[in-house]
Amino acid sequence: MGGVIVSLADLPLRADLRGQTPYGAPQAALPVALNVNENTHPVPDEVAGDILDSVARALRDINRYPDREFTALREGFADYLGHGLTADQIWAANGSNEVLQHVLQAFAGPGRTAFGFAPTYSMYPLLTRGTGATWVAGHRAHDFTLTPADAAAQVEEAGPDVIFLCAPNNPTGTPLTLDVIEAVYDASHGIVIVDEAYAEFAPRDAGTALSLLPGRERLVVSRTMSKAFAFAGARVGYLAADPAVIDALRLVRLPYHLSALTQAAATAALRHAPVMLGMVDEIVAQRDRISATLDALAYHPHESWTNFVLFGGVEDPPATWQALYDRGILIRDVGIPGHLRVTAGTEAETTAFLDALASIDSAS
Amino acid sequence: MGGVIVSLADLPLRADLRGQTPYGAPQAALPVALNVNENTHPVPDEVAGDILDSVARALRDINRYPDREFTALREGFADYLGHGLTADQIWAANGSNEVLQHVLQAFAGPGRTAFGFAPTYSMYPLLTRGTGATWVAGHRAHDFTLTPADAAAQVEEAGPDVIFLCAPNNPTGTPLTLDVIEAVYDASHGIVIVDEAYAEFAPRDAGTALSLLPGRERLVVSRTMSKAFAFAGARVGYLAADPAVIDALRLVRLPYHLSALTQAAATAALRHAPVMLGMVDEIVAQRDRISATLDALAYHPHESWTNFVLFGGVEDPPATWQALYDRGILIRDVGIPGHLRVTAGTEAETTAFLDALASIDSAS
Repeated sequence: MGGVIVSLADLPLRADLRGQTPYGAPQAALPVALNVNENTHPVPDEVAGDILDSVARALRDINRYPDREFTALREGFADYLGHGLTADQIWAANGSNEVLQHVLQAFAGPGRTAFGFAPTYSMYPLLTRGTGATWVAGHRAHDFTLTPADAAAQVEEAGPDVIFLCAPNNPTGTPLTLDVIEAVYDASHGIVIVDEAYAEFAPRDAGTALSLLPGRERLVVSRTMSKAFAFAGARVGYLAADPAVIDALRLVRLPYHLSALTQAAATAALRHAPVMLGMVDEIVAQRDRISATLDALAYHPHESWTNFVLFGGVEDPPATWQALYDRGILIRDVGIPGHLRVTAGTEAETTAFLDALASIDSAS
Repeated sequence: MGGVIVSLADLPLRADLRGQTPYGAPQAALPVALNVNENTHPVPDEVAGDILDSVARALRDINRYPDREFTALREGFADYLGHGLTADQIWAANGSNEVLQHVLQAFAGPGRTAFGFAPTYSMYPLLTRGTGATWVAGHRAHDFTLTPADAAAQVEEAGPDVIFLCAPNNPTGTPLTLDVIEAVYDASHGIVIVDEAYAEFAPRDAGTALSLLPGRERLVVSRTMSKAFAFAGARVGYLAADPAVIDALRLVRLPYHLSALTQAAATAALRHAPVMLGMVDEIVAQRDRISATLDALAYHPHESWTNFVLFGGVEDPPATWQALYDRGILIRDVGIPGHLRVTAGTEAETTAFLDALASIDSAS
């Protein structure tokens, strides 16, 4: 303005932000987008209609502030999760990122530390630093698994205030067994967050950390509607924990953080959970097809309990990523040497990816 | 759980949060709610219909993450604000509280200070402390006004990193002239936020800080759709500033912080700005009627350019608040001795408040 171009360096920006660039998975308009682990199946029409009716009702009072306690939505999540949970054990926010940010603001922040086993969800360190805390990275076995003894020993040594356990793990897909969670909890004095963002894609008989909540007041189990519920655009994450943890989150959330539209849409979608989750089986089938085909193509897919597959054996990941991009297919280079990650799409999208990859022939 | 009741004191909560209670204006279901400066007029049916059409379109892709750059919405705000603004000068978030939080995260935070002239919007110190910065309170004249020389001198002495100027001021309703903003800007090295949440209720020929943006790269003008646009339930705040400031906010916002539903609803509402703002004149007329009647009842209303009136001369504010509550009318005790604050409602709501107050007869 005034003919002078101002840059970030001209502003009194915080020193720790200087030189940083914003988070950014590419939002390219490609025919086949399998890069950010979305559910590529649209919400069924019958559900969309009911959501719209609920939004229409919410619009009648949109001039008023929303229910600060989002009571109906919390009841909906408690019903959906089961395990005897009640609404006073539920929290929600604009995406699981904001849910995790609230936990960090209450229990980490300046002068404290948060910990996770790398490689894991890339937002954990960003959220940790964004709230003023220090990030400490633990490590995994070569196949990205964790044993109870090793995990507990690492946590005991680090002594963190908040611990992230991504179960199953993003970006590797790796299952996490309940005995690891129990061992980490017992070895720690801090808040243990089990991030079950992809839990609905695990085998039906797989355990959930929800079963570990009774008697563990420092345990937090976070979920999201972005994946299994095909609701990424609505930004709804949530968690279950002891009611005292929920009280702590009330101290740090902004008043009225969840809009009346979000509350109405999410509550309506939850009423249709069986239909919404009907797509999960199809996605799991495509995920397993991806793994089998990658194996046949001489890549090395890692075991996945999620809606994506991380695969090794890629000689030149940026080159393969670009070759797929040039064929209209967007996947993700998550920065693990020799690896790429692909989301399981519809049958047609999955076929397009697998055919394109086969045509490139770049397995090392 | 496990038969044992866990309390906040049993959890590893941050030390600075111990003993705090959550923000909470009462959300009581009273017939006449004039306590949180909402626009008590519902969104007109014709606008609600168009918003619903936009939400229906957004639901078709709700399985995908939203546009992280919310481009259409930023263009809508630039058009609405005028003053030659373009989309690269606009930011938005879930309510102006989150907009202000982003500014504080980028330019204040741990080790830095934020400043405002008390009494002012009660969320400023909460947001400041929530992001780890220190709050410094300046002072106003007895009638809550500020002069350029006094305001500049206070800011120069405090040397804050972020300065809040609420124009007009909440909870007092006091106008702020542009010469005060210019003087404060010149006396500071930090970010100057002019919070124009209630700007649409000011006289038509009142100036806006938007006119001061050219050549002032540290100036930020924040607005909200909660008041004039009758959109409090949708949680949409926004700001205009130099594009470099917007770049800084991209570093601290959570990815995809604005849902596709929020983007669709707000963009549609903006298309109907003239209709949405049609209620403003009615509200201003009720505000002026409140002031005149309070004066006749021997209370002391302060000059207001907002949709509410702060009035002094109340002998026992809690007693008057309770007497109104018992008559089904909710207003706000903002903690200023001898004062109460009331929102201008519809003609019927305003009449109900004034009649009830007259029946109480407690002016000192």
